[in-house]
Amino acid sequence: MDLWYTEYFHEKLDGKPTAGHSFKIKKHLVDEQSKFQKIDILETIDRGKLLVLDGMVMLTENEEFVYHDMICHPASNLLKYANIKPKKALVIGGGDGGTVRELLKVDGIEKVILCEIDGKVVDLCKKYFPKVASGLDDSRVEVVVGDGISYVKKFENEFDLICIDSTDPVGPALGLFNQSFYQSIFKALNENGVMAAQTESIFLRLEFIKEIQSVLKSIFPFVAPYIASIPMYPTGNWCFSLASKAIDPFICYKPDFCDKITFQGPYYNSRVHQGAFAIPTWARDFLESGATN
Amino acid sequence: MDLWYTEYFHEKLDGKPTAGHSFKIKKHLVDEQSKFQKIDILETIDRGKLLVLDGMVMLTENEEFVYHDMICHPASNLLKYANIKPKKALVIGGGDGGTVRELLKVDGIEKVILCEIDGKVVDLCKKYFPKVASGLDDSRVEVVVGDGISYVKKFENEFDLICIDSTDPVGPALGLFNQSFYQSIFKALNENGVMAAQTESIFLRLEFIKEIQSVLKSIFPFVAPYIASIPMYPTGNWCFSLASKAIDPFICYKPDFCDKITFQGPYYNSRVHQGAFAIPTWARDFLESGATN
Repeated sequence: MDLWYTEYFHEKLDGKPTAGHSFKIKKHLVDEQSKFQKIDILETIDRGKLLVLDGMVMLTENEEFVYHDMICHPASNLLKYANIKPKKALVIGGGDGGTVRELLKVDGIEKVILCEIDGKVVDLCKKYFPKVASGLDDSRVEVVVGDGISYVKKFENEFDLICIDSTDPVGPALGLFNQSFYQSIFKALNENGVMAAQTESIFLRLEFIKEIQSVLKSIFPFVAPYIASIPMYPTGNWCFSLASKAIDPFICYKPDFCDKITFQGPYYNSRVHQGAFAIPTWARDFLESGATN
Repeated sequence: MDLWYTEYFHEKLDGKPTAGHSFKIKKHLVDEQSKFQKIDILETIDRGKLLVLDGMVMLTENEEFVYHDMICHPASNLLKYANIKPKKALVIGGGDGGTVRELLKVDGIEKVILCEIDGKVVDLCKKYFPKVASGLDDSRVEVVVGDGISYVKKFENEFDLICIDSTDPVGPALGLFNQSFYQSIFKALNENGVMAAQTESIFLRLEFIKEIQSVLKSIFPFVAPYIASIPMYPTGNWCFSLASKAIDPFICYKPDFCDKITFQGPYYNSRVHQGAFAIPTWARDFLESGATN
């Protein structure tokens, strides 16, 4: 049977899809509705299994390495370059476990808490994506099923590193993209703390990214967008936002950065780290125009 | 009417498409068969006009700036950084004129020759993509309609810069990806000459890219792949290959590169230049494994 899954999206926010990207499917493995969202898992022909939440592609087994390298290791290596060993990290969202798996690779890490609102995502990913979820049973990991927005409020001066690994800013993830949430994140980080969040595509949502950057800049002293090539997501280019309490992310351009940062993932390396912060001129100028930071 | 154009492709070369990307279409403007290929021009909803040759997306008006910045300006600014002012450039393929338009922005350029096999592409692009083709009527430009493979053989020690702006390595473009053609390119370049060629996606054709790099390394002293984010192409990540007679492309990492290279396009800037040569670890290691250069 000639089965395809197409995620539709729009280049501009006019509400109606004007673009799409498609995956050829062997088998529809999971078709469930949780309390929070629709969860689908599909077996593709040549990209491994595919996780889709509320119609949005979250990961393919073959390409998740890019996203998970890049939501974790720019922040962790920024800390490393500043001679800070992150010990305690928090992941909001990220129920598939991929971000936790990467955080466990960070030198000296002692504790990783995952706070995912949808326990069904965690359970299904453990079953269908064992390589992605591999870190969730590590003794250093605590999995909390609950609302990240209220959970993070409990902490003050607690984490070295927080990754906000959410779905797109619709539905259950909407509250993970606003001032009050980022203020809680700021409070939960210790004095050198850094956060990284997925913040959509520069080719699709540049105005949204600018808004997020502006909110972050009203709270954090150092804020910068960075990008990575992720074919499984709309446009194939994905933007993350890094916000830092004490360390300027642009120290990655210091001449000894590539000598000092020897960590490598399948996607991440020190040159890729530097390259990720190099924003194409049109997007950089738009994001910086009228900025106060 | 709900009209879509989908370009299908495969993540791995098993011959059958396993992925696709789609553009919502307002109107099918051109539907012609030239002596060489099928030419379609479509009006999209929000990405401007779309040029498709033999079913392969060549450009959209909204995103062509990335491709044309990146096939031209890394090479031109490598020369600039080495204190060489390119005077004479050749484009093989590129009948839409976008690469010529960018070459005309290079400081000191005196002559640009475009050699495109399909005159119909040039004519249609002048009519339907006037902003892309804008340089073709410049007095410094000569348009030759003919076979690039035999045309380039006429020259020895002639060009500072050659851009190979071809379609994918099938059909009329197949001969633009082999040893004998690259030898002609080497001969046609002067002693400091540099070439840049589009060489597919690292997420789709890494083995092919390795082959091309290996052939280039058997001819040129300096060869390096570089990448850019181009949503209009399959996977959204596109690879180019730079080959140079005398100048090491990795001088872009010298500490004064960003001070000296002040040229900016809508995509290109000196940080983006450096970032483009930062290849993700898995691809870099695969391309370098067993390499002789």
